[in-house]
Amino acid sequence: MVYIGIDVGGTGVKAGIVDEAGKIVSHGSMPTVLTDTPDKQISDMARFALELLEKSEYTLEDVASVGVGVPGIADQKTGEIIFCTNLGWHHVPFRQIFQRVLDKPVYIDNDATVAGLAEAVAGVSAGADSSVFITLGTGVGGGIVLKGKVWSGFHGTGSEIGHMILKMDGEPCTCGNRGCLERYCSATAIIRMAREMLPDNPDSSIMTTCGGDLSKVNARMVIDAARTGDPVGESVFRRYVYYLSQAISNICNFLDPEVIVLGGGVSNAGAFLLDAVRKEVPKYCLFKDMEYARIELAKLGADAGMIGAAMLGQRQ
Amino acid sequence: MVYIGIDVGGTGVKAGIVDEAGKIVSHGSMPTVLTDTPDKQISDMARFALELLEKSEYTLEDVASVGVGVPGIADQKTGEIIFCTNLGWHHVPFRQIFQRVLDKPVYIDNDATVAGLAEAVAGVSAGADSSVFITLGTGVGGGIVLKGKVWSGFHGTGSEIGHMILKMDGEPCTCGNRGCLERYCSATAIIRMAREMLPDNPDSSIMTTCGGDLSKVNARMVIDAARTGDPVGESVFRRYVYYLSQAISNICNFLDPEVIVLGGGVSNAGAFLLDAVRKEVPKYCLFKDMEYARIELAKLGADAGMIGAAMLGQRQ
Repeated sequence: MVYIGIDVGGTGVKAGIVDEAGKIVSHGSMPTVLTDTPDKQISDMARFALELLEKSEYTLEDVASVGVGVPGIADQKTGEIIFCTNLGWHHVPFRQIFQRVLDKPVYIDNDATVAGLAEAVAGVSAGADSSVFITLGTGVGGGIVLKGKVWSGFHGTGSEIGHMILKMDGEPCTCGNRGCLERYCSATAIIRMAREMLPDNPDSSIMTTCGGDLSKVNARMVIDAARTGDPVGESVFRRYVYYLSQAISNICNFLDPEVIVLGGGVSNAGAFLLDAVRKEVPKYCLFKDMEYARIELAKLGADAGMIGAAMLGQRQ
Repeated sequence: MVYIGIDVGGTGVKAGIVDEAGKIVSHGSMPTVLTDTPDKQISDMARFALELLEKSEYTLEDVASVGVGVPGIADQKTGEIIFCTNLGWHHVPFRQIFQRVLDKPVYIDNDATVAGLAEAVAGVSAGADSSVFITLGTGVGGGIVLKGKVWSGFHGTGSEIGHMILKMDGEPCTCGNRGCLERYCSATAIIRMAREMLPDNPDSSIMTTCGGDLSKVNARMVIDAARTGDPVGESVFRRYVYYLSQAISNICNFLDPEVIVLGGGVSNAGAFLLDAVRKEVPKYCLFKDMEYARIELAKLGADAGMIGAAMLGQRQ
């Protein structure tokens, strides 16, 4: 059997046919037309998946299920997407609309959960007993895989690592709370910290790379500056590692997974970030003479969305 | 089949014979002799369990396994107790010593995990898909049960809820970190907050109940004062609920269990605490239009240790 995985992004949709081992055997992409109704968008996705299938060596009979990863939240029981900010969807009966065109079991989950599942099936955490995936991007998302199965919680609202409170009464968050982990461990946090320091540090190399325009500062510029010893870059990076390591140790002390996988834009810093985090995390793990999670970088990149979405049906 | 559950405390050991449904059919207790060697203490526990069995209607053939709950941490694979502070044990091969006297499979876990399992088998979270137990005592402990099975993590160091960092750079903790949840959500935290306020509030009713001696203040006095509208009691209780609710919402946003169970000394505040926490937690749960965990009070009390320990063998 094969599985169809659909990765719904803000600007485009990727669809892939994925085998039992999590390998993409065929794939394609189509743009998202934001002005279309959700009904039209979802029907188009299903038709696109059917076309992909027709062009492949497989038929509808070979397809076990369809999985969809969305930047939002879905009710697994009803197949409804509760909301999907990028697409402006609110309470959209995704499964029902999709199945009118392509009648297979349809599983939906959050994009970070789906990426975490992909890594657990065919990536860096393949074969692990348990893993927690953390996306370090504009926000911070999470995906939990336990005993080879997706864990999105009993009510489907779990793995929202970014909105665990890490510093009570800390920075205000877009969610309305204060001190969410996302305020300290996202690319946005790196940018905020750099912007706070730069006016008092006009000699920082970041001022050159951003052309003196603070609105152009991004996380990569800051981390690259840290690599070359720029004091602002180093200070921000050191604080970022301090925050992220406490967030990771919280997961170790609470859930104690076998592997913690770092993905998302900030993880492109590679070994520079990984080495620093691996050195810092043990300071906060409770039991000093016991092992704790192996910390790794995600390796599937842009394919993770399709692979993980496809595998949802295999890993419930 | 029946199961033997042993609850190892600082001052005594309780042993029970427990049936498949988690019901105690026979039980007894013996003192802990701290001056004995671990070898002697553990052999005595095994002999005590054998005596209990002899006095019951069951024989050794009816016993499926033995479970032990300890205030410490054990390596499930080797059966070694890594440490157990109250008893002063460090790297004690519990299983090996015990089996010399009573040769059955022996499972060992942390006391909070064991209490959480008891509630999940025969208590307030019985039949739930998933539950997280939180003991609010001198410290804060935790127990995770997922799909009816104990989850102590891949390396056996999980469910240490008390040492998740809730306020980075906050109060120093005995573990060496700062801002651990335990510093804000334990009975000790209630006492600390009251002691800080009392010198400036000599008219507080707590000053009368403690006889003017701040070293005599306990969590019950503070909560009782809050019930009667004492300003210091109310202020401390309000802050305690604020802290505990953020800790609980972190578990909801991350693991999203079906039930969260509150146990330990502070939970004796009953409905007064439960109602306040139930009202506060939703403020911090990310998805406002989705359900989250049911919050309940533990109900097995002092029996939880024996029941949960016994059930370890059934729920691996």
